Order: sequence, then structure tokens, then C-alpha cells
Amino acid sequence: MLTVHHLGRSQSERIVWLCEELALEYELKRYERAPLLAPPEYKALHPVGTAPVITDGDLVIGESGAIVEYILVKYGGGRLEREPGHREFANYLYWLHFANGSFQALLHRILIARRLEPPPEHPVLVNLHGRLASALQFMNRRLGEAEYLAGDELTAADIMMVFSLTTMRSFTPYDLGPYPNILAYLRRVGAREAYQRAMHKGDPGMARLLD
Amino acid sequence: MLTVHHLGRSQSERIVWLCEELALEYELKRYERAPLLAPPEYKALHPVGTAPVITDGDLVIGESGAIVEYILVKYGGGRLEREPGHREFANYLYWLHFANGSFQALLHRILIARRLEPPPEHPVLVNLHGRLASALQFMNRRLGEAEYLAGDELTAADIMMVFSLTTMRSFTPYDLGPYPNILAYLRRVGAREAYQRAMHKGDPGMARLLD
Repeated sequence: MLTVHHLGRSQSERIVWLCEELALEYELKRYERAPLLAPPEYKALHPVGTAPVITDGDLVIGESGAIVEYILVKYGGGRLEREPGHREFANYLYWLHFANGSFQALLHRILIARRLEPPPEHPVLVNLHGRLASALQFMNRRLGEAEYLAGDELTAADIMMVFSLTTMRSFTPYDLGPYPNILAYLRRVGAREAYQRAMHKGDPGMARLLD
Repeated sequence: MLTVHHLGRSQSERIVWLCEELALEYELKRYERAPLLAPPEYKALHPVGTAPVITDGDLVIGESGAIVEYILVKYGGGRLEREPGHREFANYLYWLHFANGSFQALLHRILIARRLEPPPEHPVLVNLHGRLASALQFMNRRLGEAEYLAGDELTAADIMMVFSLTTMRSFTPYDLGPYPNILAYLRRVGAREAYQRAMHKGDPGMARLLD
């Protein structure tokens, strides 16, 4: 039996959403931040102590990308993936890995830099904000070509990326105003029943950051 | 024909190493930093402008994890992977994604924090160094159980992780002295002919950071 350990307002919302899109049977265990950090019982789940964590029988697995690939292989039956040979296969892999490997990592660097309160014109901050603008421009261009990051249908690449474009903005605020294709994409995502169910189950009462 | 665009002293060394382990035919194009940043011709390869980048026919692919999965599927024939059903499958996925999704991202946060020169006892820096120690302890424990991160043989999970434990330390120095299993692991890696060939081809003359 698959158990998703969901830390409120965290990357583990991706896993809840994935399970809802796949209509899996799973147990959802919710944990609240206290006030910002994960509580000790969440940290005890996995040696690295960060969200997300799932358990599947005796297995304990961390790391968004690993959990997503594990669930797709074990329970997905080919859904929400692009197979080798599909013309969007390379795009699928790219956005799947870009989400945490580059984009979310960049948002975390910006979060750290802002906490250290350098003057706004500090070259480190200027460089980071330039990289963010360039990543968002690239994503905005991509979402002008296709409804979802890996083509016409939602895939796990979108499930990886959307957290960084929504909930993550409550930790590292940035403006999506200049990126109309990203905003339209988030509205498409927000209209999905599985996404709505996941957000309601995972973080009931939380205002969604879709505008 | 596969072309690996290698920016000197960068994550793209992973891709050169992967190609050497798989004994692929590929073209290696080298680019030098000037002095720290990627040169304009490297940035022009891909909209996000960061290493690594490969080209395969008309396809241009960025992002370490995506390139590694792409090459394994297209040219690997099952080598350097753990298949679903293998008892190390979840471990394989974990370390493959942990490398850039968490560990390398953490090293980049530390790099940014140090550049902003807070006092060493600043809570942001203390927290980041605590996370680094905890990740290294976890890795050290894992490498006490197995020769490689996903079991007895080298996999792509190791290829993802080793850059962060070696070359990345020239950008974000940290001490591996307290982690004897990690050091022994890096000596095993450093003794591999494919690794030696990759480092020699990719960054000739560079002292390797294995001790």
C-alpha cells in the first residue's frame, strides 16, 4: 500500500497530485510545518528529512523526481509519460529534470540570497534575478508552442514544474505578470479536477497561488 | 551523431564520463570558461545557456539528468541502469535525482551564501552547513553498505553524484575528511579507466579533486 507523507505547503503536493491524476489508491498522511520547518516526525521518516517522502511496503523513498519515476513505473501503466520514440520524449525528460535540477534550485538560491539581505543592486542578486527571468522567458516561449510542457497533454514534467510556479512563490515571491503563456498554463492546470482534489486534500483552506 | 558540448570544469564532465563508460562513438566539443562564466558560444547552444548540452541530429538537449536518461534509453541498451524489479531500483532512482535535485542544489546555495559574506555564525550559513553534513553522513553510511550508490556496480546514479563530490569542490570547497566511505568510493571511481579517459579528454591538465 502506497502512503504519501505530505508536508503542508511543500514539494510533496506534487506526489498527491500525481496520485490523483493516476486515480491511485493511496493513503495520505498530512504533516504541518511548525511554523516553517518540518516537524520532527516528518524528519524522522527519511535520513535527509526533506519532503516529499513516500512509503510502499518496506520501501521508504525520498526526492520528488525519484518518487515520480517510481510511481509511474510501478503504478502508471504508461500514463503521464512520453515513451522513447515519441517526438516529445526529449522535451519530457528535459522539463522533468529541469524542474528540480535547475529551476527549483534557482528559486532556493534566490531565497537564500534574499535572506542575507544584500542591497538590491548586489551583483549576486542581479545575476540570480537575470537567470530567473531567462528561465521564465524560455518556459513562456515553450508554453506558447504547446498546451503542456511535453506537448498536448499533461505529463509528469508538468507535475514537477507546477509546484515551483505556484506554492513555491509563497517562499520565494516572483511575478508571473510578464509571462502570459505561463499564466494561461496555470489556469489550465488549476481547472483540472485531479489538481483541485489534490490541493484540497493536501492543503485544505490554503489560497492557491494561480494568479 | 551524438555531440557532447563540454564546458570546462562543469557538470558536462558527467556526460563525457557516461559516454566513455558506454564506449559510445561521440564527438566531444570543448569550451573554456572566460574566466568563470561560460563563453557566448556555449550560451548560444541552448536557451537556458548552462552546461551540459548535447546535440543528437536536430535535437538539442540540456540538463544533466535529462541527458543521462536520454543517452541510457537511446544508446545504453540497459547498461548502467537498474531495471524496475531490481532490488536496488528505488535506490537507483533516488541517487540519480538526489544528485542535482538536492545535493548539487545545496552546494549552489552554499556558494551563493558564501559570496554574500555573512558572518560564519549567521543562522542561514549554519543551517546550510548542517544540511550539507547531514547529506554527507547519509551518503557515507550508504557507501558503507555498498560499493556504489545503487549496489555492487557503477550506475548512472554515481555518474550524476561524483561531479558534486569532486570538481564542484573547486567552486564550493568542503572537506570530505570525516567521510572515509566517500573517499574510498572516489578512489574506486578514480581508478576506472573510463573515468580517467573522460577527465583527460574533458579537462586535460586539471588536477583531479579526489583526495
